Amino acid sequence: MPLIVQKYGGSSVASIDHIRRVAMGIATSKIMGNSVAVVVSAMGGETDRLLNLAAEISHNPPGREQDALVATGEQVCSALMAITLESLGHRSKSFMGLQLPLITDNVHTKARITDLHTETIKSALDEGMIPIVAGFQGVNEDGSITTLGRGGSDTTAVALAAALKADCCEIYTDVDGVYTADPGICPRARHLKRISYQEMLELAGLGAKILHSRSVELAQKYQVPLVVKSSFGGNKQTWIVNEEEVMENSIIKGVTLEKNVSKISLIRVPDRPGIAYKILAPLADAAINVDMIIQNASIDGFADFTFTVPTTDLEKAKELVEREANDINASEMLASNNIVKVSAVGIGIKTNPGVAAKMFHSLSAENINIEMISTSEYRISCVIEEKYGELAVRAIHKAFGLDNVKEERK
Amino acid sequence: MPLIVQKYGGSSVASIDHIRRVAMGIATSKIMGNSVAVVVSAMGGETDRLLNLAAEISHNPPGREQDALVATGEQVCSALMAITLESLGHRSKSFMGLQLPLITDNVHTKARITDLHTETIKSALDEGMIPIVAGFQGVNEDGSITTLGRGGSDTTAVALAAALKADCCEIYTDVDGVYTADPGICPRARHLKRISYQEMLELAGLGAKILHSRSVELAQKYQVPLVVKSSFGGNKQTWIVNEEEVMENSIIKGVTLEKNVSKISLIRVPDRPGIAYKILAPLADAAINVDMIIQNASIDGFADFTFTVPTTDLEKAKELVEREANDINASEMLASNNIVKVSAVGIGIKTNPGVAAKMFHSLSAENINIEMISTSEYRISCVIEEKYGELAVRAIHKAFGLDNVKEERK
Repeated sequence: MPLIVQKYGGSSVASIDHIRRVAMGIATSKIMGNSVAVVVSAMGGETDRLLNLAAEISHNPPGREQDALVATGEQVCSALMAITLESLGHRSKSFMGLQLPLITDNVHTKARITDLHTETIKSALDEGMIPIVAGFQGVNEDGSITTLGRGGSDTTAVALAAALKADCCEIYTDVDGVYTADPGICPRARHLKRISYQEMLELAGLGAKILHSRSVELAQKYQVPLVVKSSFGGNKQTWIVNEEEVMENSIIKGVTLEKNVSKISLIRVPDRPGIAYKILAPLADAAINVDMIIQNASIDGFADFTFTVPTTDLEKAKELVEREANDINASEMLASNNIVKVSAVGIGIKTNPGVAAKMFHSLSAENINIEMISTSEYRISCVIEEKYGELAVRAIHKAFGLDNVKEERK
Repeated sequence: MPLIVQKYGGSSVASIDHIRRVAMGIATSKIMGNSVAVVVSAMGGETDRLLNLAAEISHNPPGREQDALVATGEQVCSALMAITLESLGHRSKSFMGLQLPLITDNVHTKARITDLHTETIKSALDEGMIPIVAGFQGVNEDGSITTLGRGGSDTTAVALAAALKADCCEIYTDVDGVYTADPGICPRARHLKRISYQEMLELAGLGAKILHSRSVELAQKYQVPLVVKSSFGGNKQTWIVNEEEVMENSIIKGVTLEKNVSKISLIRVPDRPGIAYKILAPLADAAINVDMIIQNASIDGFADFTFTVPTTDLEKAKELVEREANDINASEMLASNNIVKVSAVGIGIKTNPGVAAKMFHSLSAENINIEMISTSEYRISCVIEEKYGELAVRAIHKAFGLDNVKEERK
């Protein structure tokens, strides 16, 4: 009997009506002859409600307690899902991460899975039950509840599929798969039937909210066939598979727009060894992710030094950098958040040297100035002025022949 | 260092502001040199919110899943309390029943505690922490979450105090202790400084909502000194102690009014052996608690058979009894819920034969007709017409000299 792990996100289980509809889908899969294990997120909005309660008390609640608090969101949803399946005549049991147990390290609020015991789930499946696992959570060696960070339920589902050696892991969400661009920005975006793990990883890292990066990493590592589907029906879906199984030959697989980007510039910094380290070390210590870095050519022994940080960390970063700026006698610190990052992602990039040039040309043809550039094996990213963001996505999308000429999404 | 277990009920932790105020109280007790372990209920209204979610799905949710669902209420509150104490500079950790573990039998929704492991709590206390235990919940041998039934957090607190050999167990609630009658009904009700476990058990069984019966039983069995205080301040409190430690000499300690009472009468039932069993067995099977039973004298081999059930079970009981009524050819079934039960409770009853007579006289002096009577070692109860309930309480209260002449509660 095929074994399928299904994962339903918060928007798919946002109300009792949603839960009922999802339960019907699970039951259908079971009736069609599959063994089904399910992972659920908290009901949409619940995690924020719980975090807000904690925030009313403290700006910096202890991680252990915050985890114990927010883990209840998934626990509630898993119990409600089991109740619904039972009311439809299927035997079902809910499980917290703690009850499997799903073991993690000790890093509260963003723990990593270290082990997953499947005996409990296997014996439920053997009895013909539908086990419902509360996603996003685990337990550390001390017996304290931990959580895996935002989007962690994807990771729970893939880890469970890997541990059970499931035939596939179905991720149900509010979109029907992966598109070449956000259809809200680019109406001619095309639906992708297949995409490679590496490409999906880049897209996830660039703010595509479809899958949590770590879940894609894990799926690739354990070779779990992963498929993204809409929980609201429809036949479309996107498989995330190995490079060699991706049939489509387009060089670029997707174009993304990331808005959570700000830049900080230090003007007239003495150009001597160790300066970059001195400026950036405090940010690393504060776990602020510095993405792109540019140091322009030195004039008279001075250079301008610019880097990007997430806008959500901008205030903190400015504070930390300002101290160093005084220390090193920079003449000025400038900060701006009216920038965005557009990226082209695809496994063809590493083997097609002309890709970057084509991307830059498509932007210049629209008179869009490129402020910063970074590249990797699977990705080219440009920082541009915020107001050109959506235009840039459409221009790049068209330049690489991704536009869907048959069907324009309404 | 004295060790105190404190329990806070739902109304005491109904909002973040309430939780903050309670945390200050806990911190004060700690600062004054006590070791403090805390048990919390769910925030007021939360358990009902969760039960209503389940009720939207199913009229009869599986007990295991209902327990997993509602146990989150206490989990949320315990984490929020720990966060609050940490924000006040005290080290604190929350624990689910599952994490201690507090072991129960398998009877979901009304499980009984079979074992309580204290290692986790003890080591937290040894480190100077304030452990916060989610009340009302435990775990059975299968590793499934169980709950102890409504008011079960009292039981958790007493069990914890017993297992830790605590110096006392403080139950914080929305009233400042036990009164000789409900001050809302009887403005001259007096506050009691001490009451015996047995008397408190009778009062709890008669609908006084101050303490859960099982917690009083447990406190008596393990000789846990128990004290009821208001979480909203004030100096009054009531100690629940052994009979010999109760100083007050009044025969009657309290007068109660129970409104959740209905009666069912079967008219002209053949008066032969086994009839009572035949009528009542289906109710026992349905876990409907039959309290008082009267069978009047037989005339021509027929008798009338009357008994009381909780009004909340009346419809179900009528359904079950109607079937039997036809079987045994009773001429008629009558049901009524316009009755109440007034009771006098006190350890003096068993040694003072005149108590019942005095109670009946006080009712007849007000022209109140007694429909049914039952007595036990510590209690005399009368069923009367509903409309006379409050008058009856005041009359009995006065007859036994319980009226507070100095101070009338506003």
